[in-house]
Amino acid sequence: MCELLGMSANVPTDICFSFRGLMQRGGCTGPHRDGWGIAFYEGKGLRCFHDPQPSAESRLAQLIADYPIKSGIVISHIRQANVGGVCLENTHPFSRELWGSPWTFAHNGQLSAELFQLPLGFYEPTGSTDSEYAFCWMLGEIRRQFPKRPSNLIGVQKLIRECCEQLRLLGVFNMLLSESTHLFAYCTTKLTWITRCSPFNQAQLRDCEMAVDFQAVTTPNDVVTVIATEPLTDNEVWHPMQCGELLVLVEGEVALMGSA
Amino acid sequence: MCELLGMSANVPTDICFSFRGLMQRGGCTGPHRDGWGIAFYEGKGLRCFHDPQPSAESRLAQLIADYPIKSGIVISHIRQANVGGVCLENTHPFSRELWGSPWTFAHNGQLSAELFQLPLGFYEPTGSTDSEYAFCWMLGEIRRQFPKRPSNLIGVQKLIRECCEQLRLLGVFNMLLSESTHLFAYCTTKLTWITRCSPFNQAQLRDCEMAVDFQAVTTPNDVVTVIATEPLTDNEVWHPMQCGELLVLVEGEVALMGSA
Repeated sequence: MCELLGMSANVPTDICFSFRGLMQRGGCTGPHRDGWGIAFYEGKGLRCFHDPQPSAESRLAQLIADYPIKSGIVISHIRQANVGGVCLENTHPFSRELWGSPWTFAHNGQLSAELFQLPLGFYEPTGSTDSEYAFCWMLGEIRRQFPKRPSNLIGVQKLIRECCEQLRLLGVFNMLLSESTHLFAYCTTKLTWITRCSPFNQAQLRDCEMAVDFQAVTTPNDVVTVIATEPLTDNEVWHPMQCGELLVLVEGEVALMGSA
Repeated sequence: MCELLGMSANVPTDICFSFRGLMQRGGCTGPHRDGWGIAFYEGKGLRCFHDPQPSAESRLAQLIADYPIKSGIVISHIRQANVGGVCLENTHPFSRELWGSPWTFAHNGQLSAELFQLPLGFYEPTGSTDSEYAFCWMLGEIRRQFPKRPSNLIGVQKLIRECCEQLRLLGVFNMLLSESTHLFAYCTTKLTWITRCSPFNQAQLRDCEMAVDFQAVTTPNDVVTVIATEPLTDNEVWHPMQCGELLVLVEGEVALMGSA
C-alpha cells in the first residue's frame, strides 16, 4: 500500500511541516520505500517532484521538507509498490491536461485486473500501474462528458463520484484528485482529515520530533485542510473518512462531504 | 529571448556540468531572470523541475547542478519573458501526453499574434505564452495525423518539420521537442551542438570557472550530444545550426540533419 497527503488552503501555504512527517514513512517509520512524489498548484501552474528513491533517504525530499513552496493545493504520495515496478513512470502523482488545467491524481490501494478492461479514451498510461490506468480512464470519462469546462463543477463532482464507485468495486481505492481549484478525496478504507483555522494551536508530528506553532505562521483568516492516510500529528483531532465518502475541498474548506 | 539546453545520450548521463554553465545565464552572466525549467527522461519516465525564480539564485537550480540525475534525454530552458507574465504556468518546458509518452517542449523566440488563430485540437494551453500555444497546436496536429504511435517516426518527423516551417513564418522559432526516444531540435536563428565520444577530452565552461575531464567519467562506448543556444564551453568546436534546419538525435547520435 501507499500513503497519501493532500492540502487545500485559502492562502498560499507551505506543506513543509506535514511533508516532513510523511517522508519519514518512506523507509524510516513506515515501509513505503518505492518512491514518492508531490504536486504543488500555484494558481493553474503546477510543479511536480518525482523520485523513485525512498523519501526518508532522498536529497530531493529533504529539500522539499526545507524549502517553503507556497501553494493552494498539494497532492503527495509515498509508494509501497504492488502493481508495476519501481521506476519513474510508475511514481505518483500522475498528471494530464484537461480544459487547459493540469489534473493531478494519486492513489492508495489496489484494483483487480478487470480494471484494464475499462475503455480508455483520450488519455493513455505511461507506466504499468493500476493507479495511472484508473486515472486515465476517469479523466477520459470526464472529458467525454464535459469536453469544455462547465460553469461550475457540480456535474463533474457527480461524475467523479460515479467513477469512484465503479472503481471501488474492483478493490481498495483511496484517492486524491485536483484540477487546480478543487481537491477531491475519495475513501474506501483509510483517509483522515483536519481543518486548521483561527485560533491556531501548536501541533506535534507523530513520525519525528517536530512541533510547529501555527499561530506564529498564520493570519486569523487562514483556513487550511490537510488530508492523510493516517493522522500526521498526535495532539489534534483528525476526522476519519467513511467508506464510499467523497470530500471536496475548495480554498481550505469542505465544500461537499457525503457518502453514497 | 531565452536560452535552450538539450542532451541526448546512449547511456544514462547527468547534465550537471552543462546545467551549471546554463544556470549562470539566468541572472548572472546572462539576463534570463524570468524562471527556468528542466525535464529529464528516464526511459518513458519524465521528471520535470520548474521554478519561476532566476536560476542563478535558485536553491532548486543549485540542487540540479549538484545532483547527478542520469538521463537519456534532457530539455532545459531559462526564460527572459516576452509574451506572458512571469509565473509557474508560463515556465518551460511544457509537457503533454500522446501515445502514452510524455512529450516535452521548450522554445526560444517570439511568434506573432497570428499564431493564436491556429486551431487547437486535443491540447489546450494552461498559461498565456506563445510557446505553449505553439506546442499545443503542433502536438494536436501530430495526434490528428498519427492517433497511434507509428512503427517508426519518419512520417512524424516530416510533420514536425512542416509544423516548424509554418511557425517560422510567424517569427523566431528555435525549439527542442521530445517524446522520450527522439530529441528534435529546430533552428531559425540560434542553436549550436556538439557530439562528445571517445577519445574524450577536458572541457572548460564559459560561464563559470569549472572544467570537467570527460574521459574520467565516461566509458569508450558513450556518445552524448549537447545542444545549446550558445556554446557552453570555450575549448571545443560547436556546430551552429542553420536557419530552417531540423536535427534529430537518437541515443546521442545525429539521426537526421537537414535544411528545408
